[in-house]
Amino acid sequence: MEHALQEQDRRPWNRVYVLRLGHRPGRDKRITTHVALVARAFGANGFILADVVDEGLKESLLKIEKSWGRGISYFEMGVNPVEYINKWKRDGGEVIHLTMYGVHVDFVIDEIKRSNRDKLVIVGAEKVPRIIYDLAHYNVAIGYQPHSEVAALAIFLDKLFSGSELYLEYSGARLRIIPEYNGKKVVRCRH
Amino acid sequence: MEHALQEQDRRPWNRVYVLRLGHRPGRDKRITTHVALVARAFGANGFILADVVDEGLKESLLKIEKSWGRGISYFEMGVNPVEYINKWKRDGGEVIHLTMYGVHVDFVIDEIKRSNRDKLVIVGAEKVPRIIYDLAHYNVAIGYQPHSEVAALAIFLDKLFSGSELYLEYSGARLRIIPEYNGKKVVRCRH
Repeated sequence: MEHALQEQDRRPWNRVYVLRLGHRPGRDKRITTHVALVARAFGANGFILADVVDEGLKESLLKIEKSWGRGISYFEMGVNPVEYINKWKRDGGEVIHLTMYGVHVDFVIDEIKRSNRDKLVIVGAEKVPRIIYDLAHYNVAIGYQPHSEVAALAIFLDKLFSGSELYLEYSGARLRIIPEYNGKKVVRCRH
Repeated sequence: MEHALQEQDRRPWNRVYVLRLGHRPGRDKRITTHVALVARAFGANGFILADVVDEGLKESLLKIEKSWGRGISYFEMGVNPVEYINKWKRDGGEVIHLTMYGVHVDFVIDEIKRSNRDKLVIVGAEKVPRIIYDLAHYNVAIGYQPHSEVAALAIFLDKLFSGSELYLEYSGARLRIIPEYNGKKVVRCRH
C-alpha cells in the first residue's frame, strides 16, 4: 500500500480520462457500464461518453460512487469526440487509442509513463472512424487477438499504474471490504 | 516473442479452464461473450458455461475461432458447476474463484504460478452461491473496488502468464494483424 502511494506521488501527470466511443444505448449499456466501472476502479479520474446521453449509465456509476467513494471526479456525456480530442491536445494532453490494430502496449508503455502529459484513453466499440487513429498520439494494441474493450482498458491502466491501482480506496466510501480467505466481509464506514 | 515462448515451456501446469457462473441468456449475452473472448485471447484453453446452454454464445466464439485460430480446445455448456468443480479437484486440479471479497491477487499469484496443478478459474455474475467460496482453493480479489468480471479475468490471466499471453497467435487463423502506428492492416493467411 505504501509502495502504491509512493509511486503515485512520483507520477509526472495529473489526469487520466477515459473517452468511450460508439455507445449504443440499450445494446451496449452493460458493456459501457463495465468500461466506466473499470475506468473508476483502475485509477482514471474522468469518464466521457461520446455522442450520446445515457441516463441509465450515469445512474449506475453514481450508485457505485455513493457506496464505494468518489473515484471519478469528471463525468460528461454527449460530447463530440473529435472536438474533445482536439481540445485535449491543445491543452497539452496526450491521446492514447486502444485498438487491436495498433502497436503492442509493451513497446510504448514506458514512454507513455515517462511523459508528463495528461492521458486521454480512448476505447471504441465495433467500428472506430479513421480520424480517431489519425488524431491519437498512440494507437495501442493489448495483444493481437479480438477480445474486449473492458479487458483492454483494465490491462492498459494496470500497466500505466504498475499494479498500484489495485490498492485504491476512494474518499466518501460507505462500504469497505475486509479481505477474507473464504467468505464475504463488508463493513460500513462512518463519516 | 521468444521470451513468451520460453516462459510457456517452463510452466508446470497444462490446463487453464474458465468456468462462467450465473449467466442469464439475453441480459448477459454480451458480457459472457466478452468473458469467453478474454479467456481465449489471454491463454485459457477451456471455457465452460455453468447451468445454461446459449447457442448464440457458442456461435460468437466459433466465429472468432474460425477467423483468428483455435485458442479454446475445450468448450462445454449447461454443466452443473458444483459437480464440475468437485471432479476438477478429484483430478488434482486447483480452483481459483475471482471475487472482490477475496485475498489480493498479489498475495497469492506466485504460489498459484509455482504449483503444478491445472487451474480452473471461476468468474461469477452478481450473486455467487456460498458453496463456491467454500469449494475454491483460492478466493482472489482483483482489487477491492467493484468493476467487471471481464476485467478481473483479464488481469488474473495477465498475471498468471506474466504478460506473455499478449503475444499469442493461434493455429488455423485465417486473419492476422500487422501492427501499425496509424491504421489497420490485416492479412489473410494461406494454409
